[in-house]
Amino acid sequence: MSLLNEAGPVRFLRNVEVGEDVSFYGFVNAYGCSLGAGTKVGPFVEIQKNVRIGARCKISSHSFLCEGVELEDEVFVGHGVMFVNDKYPRATNEDGSLQGGADWQVSPTRVCRRASIGSGATILCGVEIGAGSLVGAGAVVTRNVPPGVVVAGNPARVIRKLSEPAQA
Amino acid sequence: MSLLNEAGPVRFLRNVEVGEDVSFYGFVNAYGCSLGAGTKVGPFVEIQKNVRIGARCKISSHSFLCEGVELEDEVFVGHGVMFVNDKYPRATNEDGSLQGGADWQVSPTRVCRRASIGSGATILCGVEIGAGSLVGAGAVVTRNVPPGVVVAGNPARVIRKLSEPAQA
Amino acid sequence: MSLLNEAGPVRFLRNVEVGEDVSFYGFVNAYGCSLGAGTKVGPFVEIQKNVRIGARCKISSHSFLCEGVELEDEVFVGHGVMFVNDKYPRATNEDGSLQGGADWQVSPTRVCRRASIGSGATILCGVEIGAGSLVGAGAVVTRNVPPGVVVAGNPARVIRKLSEPAQA
Repeated sequence: MSLLNEAGPVRFLRNVEVGEDVSFYGFVNAYGCSLGAGTKVGPFVEIQKNVRIGARCKISSHSFLCEGVELEDEVFVGHGVMFVNDKYPRATNEDGSLQGGADWQVSPTRVCRRASIGSGATILCGVEIGAGSLVGAGAVVTRNVPPGVVVAGNPARVIRKLSEPAQA
Repeated sequence: MSLLNEAGPVRFLRNVEVGEDVSFYGFVNAYGCSLGAGTKVGPFVEIQKNVRIGARCKISSHSFLCEGVELEDEVFVGHGVMFVNDKYPRATNEDGSLQGGADWQVSPTRVCRRASIGSGATILCGVEIGAGSLVGAGAVVTRNVPPGVVVAGNPARVIRKLSEPAQA
Repeated sequence: MSLLNEAGPVRFLRNVEVGEDVSFYGFVNAYGCSLGAGTKVGPFVEIQKNVRIGARCKISSHSFLCEGVELEDEVFVGHGVMFVNDKYPRATNEDGSLQGGADWQVSPTRVCRRASIGSGATILCGVEIGAGSLVGAGAVVTRNVPPGVVVAGNPARVIRKLSEPAQA
């Protein structure tokens, strides 16, 4: 692994730990995260601190990965996918002061090996998406997804099993 | 308040009126809007003209605030939130000419004090979101949201009252 | 038509074929696509290779147009609209190697003349959106949309006919 620091006109990378052949497109903002060998990150993506991304993943344009997200190897994240780490987000505390990192608890999310998340999906916090499963485009995932299934809708429900084995 | 004008490689700010300690991340496009003291704006955000944002708000990455949007103080806007100001958007007029600012009516939207809008939500135009209410991640808000409730789904419906008072 | 090549700090345009008076905002990534006269593209937009966009269209901020998308003339694409071209996206092949362009089939999508796609909508692959139709904000379009109607919801369903003729 090597440690990237880059502040340039087209992307910001700070303390980003990368395996071999990790690539970032322009217009990326990433900090304090790690990405395994071969993973590719598209434009207009933000990856926050303490995000861990496995090897050979694809993170497509316009997606947001917040603190608390862990992707195992070979995960596909479509375009415009939003992860969440706080069930009751607020701008301020009850005394009106702006919330900082110490004012909320990160609720973690794990996406297991070879799962794919369709474009435009929203993934609520505290869930696990099972190995090889497919989250349909535009779905809103509010609870755990078992391995080897397709989920879709808002809230997302299992619509069928995948005939393809999960390869996990 | 002071008036910012900045055209640089990583963000565009034109005629942006700001209170003290307003901060913008990189990759922001904002023009002709005002933001109250302490408000923070994340990356990949666009804020259009005539948007008024109160004090101590957080506008998270990938969100779009169109003309006609007003946020009161201490509002949280999650990641990838889209506001709308035109119920029947068209690229062109009936004569085939491109629509300009004079060719549609802005339908305003107000988000009241201490409300929070979850990531991936879409807020249709002409609605008011009540004080302290929480719009669930991925929700599509098509009508007014009363104060002190949680809404979710597409279209968004009240799923429960918040036990926490709205602090309004 | 003329051929643009531009690599700069605020946008990337490579082999973009444009008619007269096509305009791009900053923070755009576009390559190998064509856009007809008068079309406007907002910030934080990605347009992939082999996308064909007609004349006098508006492509609003935060939208993603993938290979396989064709927009006829005078189409409106709202903010944060995600198109899809692969029904079963995967990061890797079954042997664990990263997927490349040869490893999937592009499933095309056509948006017919004067149709409008609302903000936050997700358009699955292999569909046609009929002339003059309106896709509601936040809708997830999973099948063909006939001309002259309004669709909304997840999955999107026809909610009514448009009294305005489709002008097609």
